[in-house]
Amino acid sequence: KRGPSAVQNTPSDLSKKKTIVVFSSDFDKVMAAFVIANGALAMGSDVTLFFTFWGLNALRNKNCEPARKNMIESMFGFMMPRGAEKLSLSKMNMGGMGLRMIKGIMKKKNVASLSELIASAQASGVRLVACTMSMDLMGIKKEEMIDGVETGGVAMYLQQAESGNVNLFI
Amino acid sequence: KRGPSAVQNTPSDLSKKKTIVVFSSDFDKVMAAFVIANGALAMGSDVTLFFTFWGLNALRNKNCEPARKNMIESMFGFMMPRGAEKLSLSKMNMGGMGLRMIKGIMKKKNVASLSELIASAQASGVRLVACTMSMDLMGIKKEEMIDGVETGGVAMYLQQAESGNVNLFI
Amino acid sequence: KRGPSAVQNTPSDLSKKKTIVVFSSDFDKVMAAFVIANGALAMGSDVTLFFTFWGLNALRNKNCEPARKNMIESMFGFMMPRGAEKLSLSKMNMGGMGLRMIKGIMKKKNVASLSELIASAQASGVRLVACTMSMDLMGIKKEEMIDGVETGGVAMYLQQAESGNVNLFI
Repeated sequence: KRGPSAVQNTPSDLSKKKTIVVFSSDFDKVMAAFVIANGALAMGSDVTLFFTFWGLNALRNKNCEPARKNMIESMFGFMMPRGAEKLSLSKMNMGGMGLRMIKGIMKKKNVASLSELIASAQASGVRLVACTMSMDLMGIKKEEMIDGVETGGVAMYLQQAESGNVNLFI
Repeated sequence: KRGPSAVQNTPSDLSKKKTIVVFSSDFDKVMAAFVIANGALAMGSDVTLFFTFWGLNALRNKNCEPARKNMIESMFGFMMPRGAEKLSLSKMNMGGMGLRMIKGIMKKKNVASLSELIASAQASGVRLVACTMSMDLMGIKKEEMIDGVETGGVAMYLQQAESGNVNLFI
Repeated sequence: KRGPSAVQNTPSDLSKKKTIVVFSSDFDKVMAAFVIANGALAMGSDVTLFFTFWGLNALRNKNCEPARKNMIESMFGFMMPRGAEKLSLSKMNMGGMGLRMIKGIMKKKNVASLSELIASAQASGVRLVACTMSMDLMGIKKEEMIDGVETGGVAMYLQQAESGNVNLFI
């Protein structure tokens, strides 16, 4: 819905960079991150999202064959949500019922789904970066994440945040 | 305790704007948001708080007759805390006992209550903005929130954050 | 591993200050805060971490004799984690099993432990500030925290954040 054209309408400058560390894997928090990211893009900002710890799960590809993992990595991989469609609410999840209700309302109110928000963000040029240290700790491999995800460390995050005028941790 | 005079003492300029996204409805986190907001106001900053998702509950009016809602909205409305006095601790809430203990200590140590912090923030000119998309999702209506709350979308948030030098997500 | 020399390599200026409010006592979140803090230091920034509410527990000294406390303070002190080694994961803690797994992986992958990250941050000049209001509420005394921790209020935080170009709330 928001294409690259929206970005071109406004001159983009250094001071308009936005970064968000997506630490959480809660559906509602990841949703908030992408709503802000897409909004900022539409207003002409460069946006980079850094996915770290649990947040990495939002980038997993639900259809992906599990990559080669050791036993502990497989256990973690099995217990953590595989992709944006499998995240839970941070509150009132009620075994998925609360989430289903929220998703129902989103559909009725014509709010873009989380997967749509992610696809739209990628299409418009939001950079999605997976934290390499977290990938190591969680046992999440590059090949099990959605296409177009970059990888990087804390130095890369800080370099982006240095020139960002809005830097959030979610 | 802190009146508008505190704001007038210091020249307010663009670079001194502060924004906080209040995503959480945890008593302790909302408390932290208002302590920072009131502090920033007293030091001469413009402050805008954006209430989104669960955070909206901090703005509900405990005495308000429920607005007209559909069944799902009523369910959510019933299960979520109605106003600042009904929020829970993010940890050690223990069915309200932990919270009661914290509130008891606050009273003893003469720390302003959350409701007082909210009233003081409003009196001094902190802008309280409820996120329209979240209101839609959660089924929270403008008329069931405390007086003086504005409504706005992500574009309004980003406009404020753009000129803010401290932008937090709580 | 990162010494003061890293800081001296890069000229430090006002615009390069970083602040993080460490509100949470979750192992993973405190870890994220110190990874960012140490990274920013190594890149030449001044870094101040403000520990507030549950975050204070990360600064408790595990070997410290309990300071003089009233009954409620003792109860809180007993129930809250005593120091960085006692924190829990925000998710998948599973009675400590998830955390032990993560710590095992960290050791195997040669990732510095949280205690090492804290020591390294202190050695390199990260300022660790405990929020005085939170200390009062939680009953945590200065003498039960690790050496080198400063204390300060919200005004001190805002003063630092005012000249910071990356200000996070974790």
